[in-house]
Amino acid sequence: MSGEEAPTQQQQPEQEKKPDEPPPAASDAPQEPGSSPAAAEEKPLSCRALVLTGYGGYDKVRLQVKTQSQPQLKAGEVLVRVKACGLNFAELLGRQGLYEMLPAPPVTMGMEGSGVIEAVGEDVKDRKVGDRVITLSRSGMWQEVVVVSADHTFPMPEQMSFEEGAALPVNYITAYMMLFEMANVRPGKSILIHMAAGGVGIAATQLCKTVQDVTVFGTASASKHETIAQGGVTHPIDYRTKDYVEEIRKINPKGVDIVLDPLGGSDTQKGFSLLKPLGTLIVFGAANCVTGQKKNLLAMAKTWYNQLSLNTLKLMQANKAVCGFHLGYITDEELISRCMFKLLELYRQGKIKPRIDSCYHFEEVTDAMRRMHERQNIGKVILLPEPKKQEEKPKSNAEPGENVEKSEVSEKKEEATEEVKAEKD
Amino acid sequence: MSGEEAPTQQQQPEQEKKPDEPPPAASDAPQEPGSSPAAAEEKPLSCRALVLTGYGGYDKVRLQVKTQSQPQLKAGEVLVRVKACGLNFAELLGRQGLYEMLPAPPVTMGMEGSGVIEAVGEDVKDRKVGDRVITLSRSGMWQEVVVVSADHTFPMPEQMSFEEGAALPVNYITAYMMLFEMANVRPGKSILIHMAAGGVGIAATQLCKTVQDVTVFGTASASKHETIAQGGVTHPIDYRTKDYVEEIRKINPKGVDIVLDPLGGSDTQKGFSLLKPLGTLIVFGAANCVTGQKKNLLAMAKTWYNQLSLNTLKLMQANKAVCGFHLGYITDEELISRCMFKLLELYRQGKIKPRIDSCYHFEEVTDAMRRMHERQNIGKVILLPEPKKQEEKPKSNAEPGENVEKSEVSEKKEEATEEVKAEKD
Repeated sequence: MSGEEAPTQQQQPEQEKKPDEPPPAASDAPQEPGSSPAAAEEKPLSCRALVLTGYGGYDKVRLQVKTQSQPQLKAGEVLVRVKACGLNFAELLGRQGLYEMLPAPPVTMGMEGSGVIEAVGEDVKDRKVGDRVITLSRSGMWQEVVVVSADHTFPMPEQMSFEEGAALPVNYITAYMMLFEMANVRPGKSILIHMAAGGVGIAATQLCKTVQDVTVFGTASASKHETIAQGGVTHPIDYRTKDYVEEIRKINPKGVDIVLDPLGGSDTQKGFSLLKPLGTLIVFGAANCVTGQKKNLLAMAKTWYNQLSLNTLKLMQANKAVCGFHLGYITDEELISRCMFKLLELYRQGKIKPRIDSCYHFEEVTDAMRRMHERQNIGKVILLPEPKKQEEKPKSNAEPGENVEKSEVSEKKEEATEEVKAEKD
Repeated sequence: MSGEEAPTQQQQPEQEKKPDEPPPAASDAPQEPGSSPAAAEEKPLSCRALVLTGYGGYDKVRLQVKTQSQPQLKAGEVLVRVKACGLNFAELLGRQGLYEMLPAPPVTMGMEGSGVIEAVGEDVKDRKVGDRVITLSRSGMWQEVVVVSADHTFPMPEQMSFEEGAALPVNYITAYMMLFEMANVRPGKSILIHMAAGGVGIAATQLCKTVQDVTVFGTASASKHETIAQGGVTHPIDYRTKDYVEEIRKINPKGVDIVLDPLGGSDTQKGFSLLKPLGTLIVFGAANCVTGQKKNLLAMAKTWYNQLSLNTLKLMQANKAVCGFHLGYITDEELISRCMFKLLELYRQGKIKPRIDSCYHFEEVTDAMRRMHERQNIGKVILLPEPKKQEEKPKSNAEPGENVEKSEVSEKKEEATEEVKAEKD
């Protein structure tokens, strides 16, 4: 895995666009391209949004302020004031032009968010103004207000923060569907979770812990081991100094029952070899493709070349299962809804709780992306639409004593903020 | 699928070998090659066995009578007098030289049987002389007496017949592991079972019925539809006159959750396309390879050429799982034992019951193989070591009114028997 190298490009701070700039297409309701706001309403709506302006480095994601007339809601739609958004690996790929589900730039990115309903269209029965909801979409969530179908909103439990709400959908649906729909986690099983300190890694670990006696092998750099062990990883493995295949074989000579693989390339082959008979490998990413800040053709070629290729005869001789998972390609909305309701129930029961690594205001999106890109995060990186106050310290929901990497972040963030200030001045 | 064509070769009746012929290697305990019977015991043991003498047509499986000294049991072993054996598709492949797990000829075939323990070795604690047991092995079960490790025997429930006992292991373990270890059959799921009237097909249907509200699509020729519908197939499909993909799409436009595929080749590709998102395809055979009585290079090449070949990117975009299953390659005996005990429990609860299609004495093995090869069977074809009495009618455990194809078989069998008689005379 080579995703750890520092980006070589200089950071370019994002710039606030003036309201007279034309709003990009993505300022419309993200899931309803036909619902262009009618120009009939009185006061114009000002909306901060993070827009991907082209493919490339961090500087391609810019904070823009779009002005538009008040959206005219169609039947079944609601207007949500977004309070928090999730950052996903898919957006890092998208910025590099490696995520084909993202519309072409200029486009507002963002697949998940939480907020408060400000208006409801006709025929919306079970949502009302003031409801706190989670919502998810293919893109378009990184903005202050969004228009979405009421069916795509999920009422938040009372005790859930907006940051937790924004952290839940993508990571937990991904982990849940892989563990309980594709694999079949049951008591006594063993599992390898790569990037165990990442959003999906933490979600998967928590969900494994809802099943009795599951052994979790989790890869992460050594500094994160204490945290992931507290979170439920039975055997943390430092993939940077040790061969994880050897480490697992020392403890489980026969291998493991399930491998969750977000890496691709040669790691997929290692994962396949680590499976016990009747074991399941689930590939759900190609993080090995992403090295520097920009597209790396060599890393892509290598990942592609090394990807596991199988025929059914080989699978029969091995008695193994290989699955692919990509939430972006799941178009069955009922499937997603059912899964969300199960997850919200697990949250209410106290069985899962998203771990917020750090929160960044929209102005600080570069820092947020860098944090994830350099794999410094433990848990979810959150983006906040609300403007950052000049004196405000970086927000973090990490519990006291848990914010291991906070000082490290804070330093970086203060630097970045100064750059923004200098440019503004 | 082309497995329906009539064999072009003339049937060659099997011949009884004289006791003075050297017994083939497979007359030893099938799973303990080292346990060669010592020549110390008094009276020699005469043992009828079905021996594969070379690769080819039906005539390559010959009934031989081997004479050997009484086997000296090693610690942990038992001597079983076999009462009934199962015939599997693997043996048809083996005869053609297409089953690599079978030792080279001459070899006694047979992977499963039931019988009565006649002697126990030292350190055998939980088996005693007189116990009725099921046993399974890679080969060597088609003979009157076998020496096996006591660990490989499973006590039969009181109400279970020897024929049922011999019909259980291979088909039900295969179906169980595929449905509950690899796939994850749960209430509300839908499944396509090819060859639904075959041994695995009937086992899989019965096991699906242990889960609430599972929709079973089953392919079989029209004459078998009534029987498989009674057995639990929700939608029988005649694959010979209809396109099963179209038929399923008419009822379930989105496809199915699980496909069990014993066919291989282009049917595997069709199965993959039929899967819903998060669906699972399990390939567990290549029946399309087998057309005539002998190896068909063209059919093999076609099946090989059309076999599904996948990379992980394609799987991710499809959100699907592809598994291979082959009981012969499962070396974890504990896994097999656990599964057998679960199945015996389901039998005791009345939830599963092997359906015996027909029983043939060892002399009639050609008829038995032909019946399976030509896919005339509904359920399991059983071989009986006991010599056939001249006047005896073909044995069948089929319940009254269920033996749809019995007359058809009986005619064939009478012909075949006459041929044998003619030769004997």
